[in-house]
This record gives sequence, structure tokens and C-alpha cells, in this order.
Amino acid sequence: FQSKLPHVGTTIFSTMSQLAQQHGAINLSQGFPDFHCPPALVELVSEAMRQGHNQYAPSHGIALLRQQISRKTEWLYGHRANPDTEVTVTSGATEALFAAIAAVVHPGDEVLVQEPCYDSYVPAIELSGGVPVFVPLTFPDYSVDWQLVEEKLSAKTRLLIINSPHNPSGAVWQRADLEALAKLADQYPFLILSDEVYEHMVFDGQPHQSLLTVPALAERAFVVSSFGKTYHTTGWKVGYCLAPAALTVEFRKVHQYLTFSTATPFQHAIAAFLEQQEHYLALPQFYQQKRDLFRELLRPSKFDLLPCAGTYFQLARYDQLSDLPDVDFSQWLTREAGVAVIPVSVFHHDGQDHRVIRFCFAKKEETLRAAAERLCRL
Amino acid sequence: FQSKLPHVGTTIFSTMSQLAQQHGAINLSQGFPDFHCPPALVELVSEAMRQGHNQYAPSHGIALLRQQISRKTEWLYGHRANPDTEVTVTSGATEALFAAIAAVVHPGDEVLVQEPCYDSYVPAIELSGGVPVFVPLTFPDYSVDWQLVEEKLSAKTRLLIINSPHNPSGAVWQRADLEALAKLADQYPFLILSDEVYEHMVFDGQPHQSLLTVPALAERAFVVSSFGKTYHTTGWKVGYCLAPAALTVEFRKVHQYLTFSTATPFQHAIAAFLEQQEHYLALPQFYQQKRDLFRELLRPSKFDLLPCAGTYFQLARYDQLSDLPDVDFSQWLTREAGVAVIPVSVFHHDGQDHRVIRFCFAKKEETLRAAAERLCRL
Ligand SMILES: CSCCC(=O)C(=O)O
Ligand SMILES: CSCCC(=O)C(=O)O
Repeated sequence: FQSKLPHVGTTIFSTMSQLAQQHGAINLSQGFPDFHCPPALVELVSEAMRQGHNQYAPSHGIALLRQQISRKTEWLYGHRANPDTEVTVTSGATEALFAAIAAVVHPGDEVLVQEPCYDSYVPAIELSGGVPVFVPLTFPDYSVDWQLVEEKLSAKTRLLIINSPHNPSGAVWQRADLEALAKLADQYPFLILSDEVYEHMVFDGQPHQSLLTVPALAERAFVVSSFGKTYHTTGWKVGYCLAPAALTVEFRKVHQYLTFSTATPFQHAIAAFLEQQEHYLALPQFYQQKRDLFRELLRPSKFDLLPCAGTYFQLARYDQLSDLPDVDFSQWLTREAGVAVIPVSVFHHDGQDHRVIRFCFAKKEETLRAAAERLCRL
Repeated sequence: FQSKLPHVGTTIFSTMSQLAQQHGAINLSQGFPDFHCPPALVELVSEAMRQGHNQYAPSHGIALLRQQISRKTEWLYGHRANPDTEVTVTSGATEALFAAIAAVVHPGDEVLVQEPCYDSYVPAIELSGGVPVFVPLTFPDYSVDWQLVEEKLSAKTRLLIINSPHNPSGAVWQRADLEALAKLADQYPFLILSDEVYEHMVFDGQPHQSLLTVPALAERAFVVSSFGKTYHTTGWKVGYCLAPAALTVEFRKVHQYLTFSTATPFQHAIAAFLEQQEHYLALPQFYQQKRDLFRELLRPSKFDLLPCAGTYFQLARYDQLSDLPDVDFSQWLTREAGVAVIPVSVFHHDGQDHRVIRFCFAKKEETLRAAAERLCRL
């Protein structure tokens, strides 16, 4: 039997979380909080279930949630999305990414992917018969080399995938990046898939440079985000996709046969909770404090921390500690130091290894302190 | 822009549920209950959330749920599935169907589909570049013509999709069907995708003829089911797929990039609730009563009811009432009689119309009575 995805193994997130559990390590690998979501949100879900909201939601999401998403987006980015024709609720951002790719990538189409990147992009492209074209981000600052991007564009480029704030690096786009992209979009007819799941985690007073702030880009883009990151509920699997009506039609054709709809009680709860802007407006500050604490705690260690402008991930070089490849070092760290991390090379199709690992700092202060203590002992 | 699914519109379930709402019609179209799920199950979800089970579940599902699924399957069908390597929890049965197809159908592969069939099968095949090969079920009893199936098999047949109890017809397989399939499986190397979401709704004392009861078939099959149908929680989107380890490896490769994982609190609750076999053991009786009541109520009407041996769907001919095509008749019925139904022709790739509509009887007694009253007036 011939595999459809011969190069694909188990995703690194499963692998490392499992290894962490096996060795009783502190899990700073997979990106999820170890603290609670807002109790009021949990109560809203319970309330929705008690009221009987337990049957299929409309395939593209309940109306109130789509309206709230649209309101939030207009308020934050000045982009008006029609809730009926341009907003679709999905079973997590991962489903939205898959559906967008499956909706527009025909066999033989090229898709530009900037590496390192989230590990679902490339298999999704391959399952659609598309051809991923890889553009490396500049090392070690993980900025986009726009000249390189332009060189890789061709008549076959159907889609360009972008991601700011960037996982795994924590780099964020500047205004100039959006302008450079707009210039290319002027010359080439590619579509855009913008993965903005960390939109509420940009630090040091910078704004999130959402693609939605540039109408000429928004009119040919799928913009994906997720409530899992924003509300500390990664396990609820509620995400969404904004796209112009013509693209949304195609997106929904796929979505309706992929999952049909997303868990109803969560949709009701999140729709109600979105009234409270305080929660997401406080997120940059909330995570910036965690970033600052974690960086401070690691200062005495032998790790070299790279800058972190957004997301809840902190990259680090470990040259002073080991010359192991990053995959081996990550496993060693889990086993021997009791701290699980993600090796960044797995986010490169060719396993390119800059000897960099990723920590997730979406953790309680005590967890960060305990991990840092172990890491500083090395 | 060229659509990937040019022939696909909005799924009939969304269309009819929306039309029902617009006209304030009683909605017997899309398959979902209008009564509550067990309150104890809701409490278990609330409890799981309060305990903090709100982050990513393992991609293939929490261990306890996989174990419970495996226990149930062994107990009911005598099939031992290894919970670690042969059971995967999915975001509804729809995701499981899509993932199984995407995992094994290569471009150019043929997939045998028996019509009428659930409307997600064919788009999923097409998105994988597969070629659907249609075999009609015998009309009006919706049994499988095994000779016809054999005639359609070829060296290119990768997958055969089967579905008993059958949606939309309510037909169920006999032992002889499994035997006929086993004979073909002996001669051809196709894989099997068995959609068994209505496994607990087989009436008149008949057993559900699960594919899992035939080891020679189970060893080359994906078997899909769902808790939405079983626990009256279609909006929770928790399904699963059983397959031998080698197929499960491929299935999980796709699943991890489709949705990554399924809502965590529901998994904990359902795992605990599965201890209580009484619920699903009582389902055949529970739905048989509804079937019997609904059929009895419609006896004075001008509808000709076809047999219903399983599922929560009742087919009916309407020749005495109208000579409209079934799509038009369904819309007319929604608007003018205030009862929304599903036209069966939409489950045929060529729209073949036997002038048959589908009622869903997963409704409260008062709903069924109110609908019947309207239907008998015609
Ligand atoms: C879907 S698991 C991955 C979570 C995440 O976004 C990450 O750790 O990068
Ligand atoms: C996913 S909506 C369809 C529900 C159902 O199985 C049906 O009505 O046939």
C-alpha cells in the first residue's frame, strides 16, 4: 500500500507532548496554556448546553458568532466583513487552513511557503496535488526577504501562505512587509492565506499588522484565526476564516464536507464572551509579562535567546551547551533536564538545522520558574 | 477563478434547515433530534471543563475514550481493536469519512459508491482526485445488487464505500450482504469504508450487521461511527474511526493536519458516559417507537411509506399528491404545508428522481403529531 503522505510521520507536537509525559518533563513544547480559561466562559458553555444548544450548528457557524467576529474585525482592523457571506466558523484554525488550501489549490498549482512554518501547510498542499515552493525566512531574525519571494513567484503560483506573528520564531511583520506584499500582489494574481492565530500576542506596544488592514490584499485573501489561543481554550477547537464572498463560497463547499459544522455550545459561549473586549485587549500585556519573566529567568543560563516580538514562543540557540542536532538535543533535554521543547528544524521541509529550539511560555509563573531552574542548571 | 467543486452547491441539509426556519416549518429535514441529550452527560462536560480539560486532546483522542470505544466494539461485535493503534477520535463522522478517503484515494483511483448516498462521499473523493463509480441500489427496497457491484469493480478500484443502516433509505444489511461482500473481497484487493453511524438504530429485533463482525473484512476497512447520533448531541461533533494499524497510520497522518484533535471536554464526558450501556442498548426500542408512531400517524395521509428497518429516517412516495419533482415538492411542502423534508434525488449524482422524500422522525412525540396533522391535511 502506497502512502499518500510518505514523508509525513507523527506531528512533532504529539511526539514531544507524549515524550514529555513519559519522562514527567515540564512541557514547554506544544503551544497551549497550563492555566485556566476564564471561568465565566466555562459557565456560558454549561448554560448553552442546558438551554439545549447541542445539535448541529449551521455549517458556516451560528449567526451571532459570525456577527461578533465581524464586529471585532472591523473594530480592530477597520475591515468590514459581511457575516453572512464572508465569515465561516471552523473546527480550529487547522481546519480553516486545510479547507482554504483544498478549496483553491488545483493539482500542479504552486504554493509559496515561508520556512520555518507550521507543519500542516505542506501536507495540506500535497493532498491537493499542489507543489510547495519553499522560501527561507532570513536567519536569525526570521524576516521576509521580499526579493527572494519575488524570485520564486511564477505563472503557476496560486497561493502564498503568510503568518504573522510567526510560529515558531515569534517574529512579527512591520508595515513595510504588508507594503512589499501589496506591491507583488499588484503584479501577480496569486491568492493569499494569512495565518493570524497569534493576532492578540504582539508585544512592546507594536500593533498587529493584519492583512485585513490593506483592502487590496484582503480582497484576495483567506484570513484565519482561532479562539483557542485567545481564550486559553486550545482544546475547544473553534477557529474561523474571513474571505471575500467569492472565495468564501469555495471555502464553504469544502468545509461542509470536511467537518460540516463546529461544536455548538462553544459557539454560543464565545459569541457572548466576545462582548467583553477587555479579555483580548489585555492579552498583549498578559503574555508580554510572561515573555519578560521567562527571558529574565533564563538570563543566567547557557541558552542564547533570540528576540521575541509576538506569539507565545521563545526561540533559543544552545551552541554553548551541545553540538547535537536540534531534534536530538530536544529529546535529550526532555529526558535529562526534564524540559520538553520543539526543535525548529522540523518546520523545514529539508530539516535545515540552525540549532534552535522553541519554548512555549504560555505557562503559569511557577511552571516557568521550575523550568528555568532546570534549564539554568545545565 | 476555477472552482475545485464546480458541481457542488450548498449541502441540502443547510438549504432545507434554512428554508424551514424561514417559513416557520416543522423541520423533519436535517437529521437531528429536537429533544434533549441526557442531562447527566451535560453535567459530565461541565465537570470536565471545571477540572481544566480545555486544552488540546491528543491528536488521536484521549486514551480513556479510545479504550471505551474499543470495549464497546468488542462487546457488541466481537472485534478487538487496539485502542492505541486502531482507534482514532474525530470531529464528527464527517471528518472521519473525509480523512479515510483522503488517506487512501490517489488521483485516478476508482471508488465505488452506492446511490443514493450521503452527500459528502463524492466531493471528498473528487478532492483527492479519485473517480467515483456509481452503483444504484435497487429501487424501491434499496438493497444492494451484488452482481452490479461486481460488474463495476476493476483493477483501479481502491475503495468501496458502504453504509448500513442506510441513509437516506432506512434499509439495513442482512447477513447475506456481508457474505457477498466477503466473497468479492476475496477476489479483489479493494479497501472498504463502512459508514455505521446509525449502528444503534436497527429495528424489529434485527441485529446491526457491522462489518466488524467479519474479520476478513475488518482487516481492510475503515469503520466510522459517531456519538452525535447515539447521544442526541449532533452538535458536539465527536466521531471515530476504527481501522487496522497500517490503515490507521495513514488515517492519522491526514487527521492530524485536518483538525489535529477533537474537543477535549466532550471526550472526557463521553468516555465516562460510555460506562452506561443502558443508553445505547435502549436506542433501538426508543427509535422504533418513534418510527411506529410516525407511520401510524401518517396512515390516513396520501403518502405511501416505504419500509424502514433502521436509522431515524422514513421515506415516502407522494404520487397521489403531486407530480412535481422531489426537490420542488420538498420546497412546496415546506412553504405550503409547513413541514420541511429532504428530497432523495439530491443523493444521486445525476439527480435521478424516484419521487421520494425523506422525513426525520428523531423528534418529540408532539412534533411528530403536529407534523402528521399538517401532512394528513394534504
Ligand atoms: C495543533 S498542536 C500545535 C499547537 C501550536 O500551534 C504549536 O505548538 O505550534
Ligand atoms: C451533517 S448534516 C446531515 C445530518 C444527517 O446525517 C442527515 O440529515 O442525513
